[in-house]
Amino acid sequence: MAKHLTSRDKDYSQWYNDLVVQAGLADSSAVRGCMVIKPHGYAIWEAMQADLDRRFKETGHENAYFPLFIPKSYFSKEAAHVEGFAKECAVVTHYRLKNDPNGKGVIVDESAKLEEELIVRPTSETIIWDTYKNWIQSYRDLPILINQWANVVRWEMRTRLFLRTTEFLWQEGHTAHATEQEAIAEAEQMLHVYGDFAEDMMAMPVLRGIKSPNERFAGAIETYCIEALMQDGKALQAGTSHFLGQNFAKAFDVTFQDKDGKVKHVWATSWGVSTRLMGALVMSHSDDQGLVIPPKLAPTQIVIIPIYRGPEQLEAISLVVEPLLAELRAAGIRVKFDNRDTYKPGWKFNEYELKGVPIRIAVGPRDLENKQVEIARRDTLTKETMPMEGLIDRMVEMLSEIQKDLFDAAKRRLDDSIVKVDSWPEFEVAIKAGGFISAHWDGTAETEELIKRKTKATIRCIPLNNPQENGSCILTGEPSPERVLFAIAY
Amino acid sequence: MAKHLTSRDKDYSQWYNDLVVQAGLADSSAVRGCMVIKPHGYAIWEAMQADLDRRFKETGHENAYFPLFIPKSYFSKEAAHVEGFAKECAVVTHYRLKNDPNGKGVIVDESAKLEEELIVRPTSETIIWDTYKNWIQSYRDLPILINQWANVVRWEMRTRLFLRTTEFLWQEGHTAHATEQEAIAEAEQMLHVYGDFAEDMMAMPVLRGIKSPNERFAGAIETYCIEALMQDGKALQAGTSHFLGQNFAKAFDVTFQDKDGKVKHVWATSWGVSTRLMGALVMSHSDDQGLVIPPKLAPTQIVIIPIYRGPEQLEAISLVVEPLLAELRAAGIRVKFDNRDTYKPGWKFNEYELKGVPIRIAVGPRDLENKQVEIARRDTLTKETMPMEGLIDRMVEMLSEIQKDLFDAAKRRLDDSIVKVDSWPEFEVAIKAGGFISAHWDGTAETEELIKRKTKATIRCIPLNNPQENGSCILTGEPSPERVLFAIAY
Repeated sequence: MAKHLTSRDKDYSQWYNDLVVQAGLADSSAVRGCMVIKPHGYAIWEAMQADLDRRFKETGHENAYFPLFIPKSYFSKEAAHVEGFAKECAVVTHYRLKNDPNGKGVIVDESAKLEEELIVRPTSETIIWDTYKNWIQSYRDLPILINQWANVVRWEMRTRLFLRTTEFLWQEGHTAHATEQEAIAEAEQMLHVYGDFAEDMMAMPVLRGIKSPNERFAGAIETYCIEALMQDGKALQAGTSHFLGQNFAKAFDVTFQDKDGKVKHVWATSWGVSTRLMGALVMSHSDDQGLVIPPKLAPTQIVIIPIYRGPEQLEAISLVVEPLLAELRAAGIRVKFDNRDTYKPGWKFNEYELKGVPIRIAVGPRDLENKQVEIARRDTLTKETMPMEGLIDRMVEMLSEIQKDLFDAAKRRLDDSIVKVDSWPEFEVAIKAGGFISAHWDGTAETEELIKRKTKATIRCIPLNNPQENGSCILTGEPSPERVLFAIAY
Repeated sequence: MAKHLTSRDKDYSQWYNDLVVQAGLADSSAVRGCMVIKPHGYAIWEAMQADLDRRFKETGHENAYFPLFIPKSYFSKEAAHVEGFAKECAVVTHYRLKNDPNGKGVIVDESAKLEEELIVRPTSETIIWDTYKNWIQSYRDLPILINQWANVVRWEMRTRLFLRTTEFLWQEGHTAHATEQEAIAEAEQMLHVYGDFAEDMMAMPVLRGIKSPNERFAGAIETYCIEALMQDGKALQAGTSHFLGQNFAKAFDVTFQDKDGKVKHVWATSWGVSTRLMGALVMSHSDDQGLVIPPKLAPTQIVIIPIYRGPEQLEAISLVVEPLLAELRAAGIRVKFDNRDTYKPGWKFNEYELKGVPIRIAVGPRDLENKQVEIARRDTLTKETMPMEGLIDRMVEMLSEIQKDLFDAAKRRLDDSIVKVDSWPEFEVAIKAGGFISAHWDGTAETEELIKRKTKATIRCIPLNNPQENGSCILTGEPSPERVLFAIAY
């Protein structure tokens, strides 16, 4: 076990924080609520970005970039949006500093006050729709399928690395369509892009559904979401896709002349995932020894560690390892040979366990004699000796096995966690046990609010293609046409 | 000629603005000095990023991410740095808005005032060195080779799309080393990474050198730079790499225990290029018809346009074009078949000329009969008919030819522009003609300042490996050991 890592049983939340810092993913900064994403964490985020970006482009989207600052008045233009977003945010009021006349560094130059304050974007609907107004005249200008990779700021009071930070990195898609139908299809498509990404790349099974009105994005008609289960039984919203109707088009007066010659308001979607996914990844697979990273996202998939005494043994090992490295790379594997003399093998073993490298290969002088290596799997913590012959193919297979095993284990946890509950006392017990609860609900915001106050549980989603089934609300006993999924969430 | 494009002869500056907007690269936004980077512009920037990022990683660097906000007091810690940077910047003073009691949208909540103001980063040396303090204890923690892709804000009074904007995108490398020698080698290496990128990818020849003390980065011991020549004879600083000595390590108290057991201050570099390169690219190659983009950076390298009447002709053309597309893609070419029925061929020809697609292929019914196509080169505006047979190989060749021809033409312009001048009257004439002037200078900041006031010319760089040659300063006649390069710059 790594030296200073709290165990999950002892304190899951402390384990998470210890791990994120010690594994080199991120760290708190001197600026309240803002994190530093360290190289190992950023490399995983880059792998996520690259794959998501490919999926966005394959579905016809282009990237663009919009200003960091949004004039304060823009937020008031869409009524629901301002309630949801324009409150806790960073406000730029001045544009100059000057030398302190008392010689104590610099102070704000009060003469350089902005006429209208600028808000550091918490999300970009307003500035983007203000721009789209100039881009859209005719049906021929539609659809607009744009994504932006950016930093955003929401002034959070209680922050946790990756899960909730004042500044975070994300992507936000903003699309404009000629018809309602097309916009809904886009919002649903992006939900599945997110869902497929989470499952294929992060080995993280998700529930796909829509949000109850209470949990909808501020300004949306419908919010689609993917929800994942963390190891501690809490749910985590991992991505959302919103059908915005014509709300923003009307607020910013974005119209187009349709084929029929009529002037109409445009239909919109927006969708996003953020560095929060890093937190979801950590809490899906990792253990008391450190990170477990699915091979598809691991910056280093295999690390090779020489076990040697003196430069001659290292030389002999290197002679065997170098061609092995070349072959592994040719097979598309990201591999590293850690031949640093400044650290001992035991230290290196711990280090790569902590950092979640999926496979470790150790090679010592006896292995050379026997033409074999020692293979350790990070996910199972098992070791076995393998002949060098055929090693490359075996490694390719093992990486896919690990990816699959991680997904399967997480899928079992998720499926096993979902319990059907039909009475309030059962609900209260079940929610304490963690996981998702499938229960009837009377469809009102009041009941949802009351359940939240009593148990901290919220409706995570109403599953897509939800079976219709008559029942009575778990709390009020009022009639209900379908079950919804409750959980306590991050 | 594109409809609304001012010609270069008439007004170079207006031509540039027209082109950037009309070709879909960028546009002004509702926020003063901040631009919207449109999809076509962002796609070129992404191509630049991808190639630079590869070069950074190949030279051992990793990416990371540091906070957008920097506490005001940090800027005062490095004396020279505060003078250069902490003045014109965006200042965050509050973290909450509230509903206007008069019902007019939202207003700043005065009760949510920050104890210490936060500055939106104009550059990240201070926050990064404050972080490195925690990362560096021993020589084994060095070197730290980190790069960040980020947005930065400098409150500019006069802005121009890409060339000078309040917010811009860039990368900033920040490295920490055990020795002075190693840090200098790093700063020089990155200068060449930038120079090679500019020449290989942008087809933009550059002069490589060091800045005079006047033009140095605020806080640097030595600033290395690449300087390019724009078509109008002005110089443009395209990238800088700074040897920072121990200035930031001392300001933020970053020390390490060396192999010899002694505690020492760390040595530093920083280096960056920005979306300014987009402006440099436009002004290096484009013409009165629109953009000319070097094939290596062109999001679309070849566009195929069908010339047809009615769906049957389009069908026949498509049958031939589809396999062609597949073959071109297999050859690694980014190709697009624009078979939209909503626009006529003439409109499309103009559009792709404006957007700078290097090669246009037109295919009509007669071409099908003759098993040929019409090829138009964007850079030379020449057209020729070519047999379909062998077309793929010919296209691969032509793309490299275009890349090379663009570089060669720009190189000739650069070389021809450099004139040696030995008297002040000659200097005054030469500087008006544009280009670089190689002249003697007495080495003082005062003279440099005076020359700038008289002619607007600045010392762009002192070339690397500059030949030593005794002479007298162009203005003062004082002795000088070497020529330096002057120009009027963007």
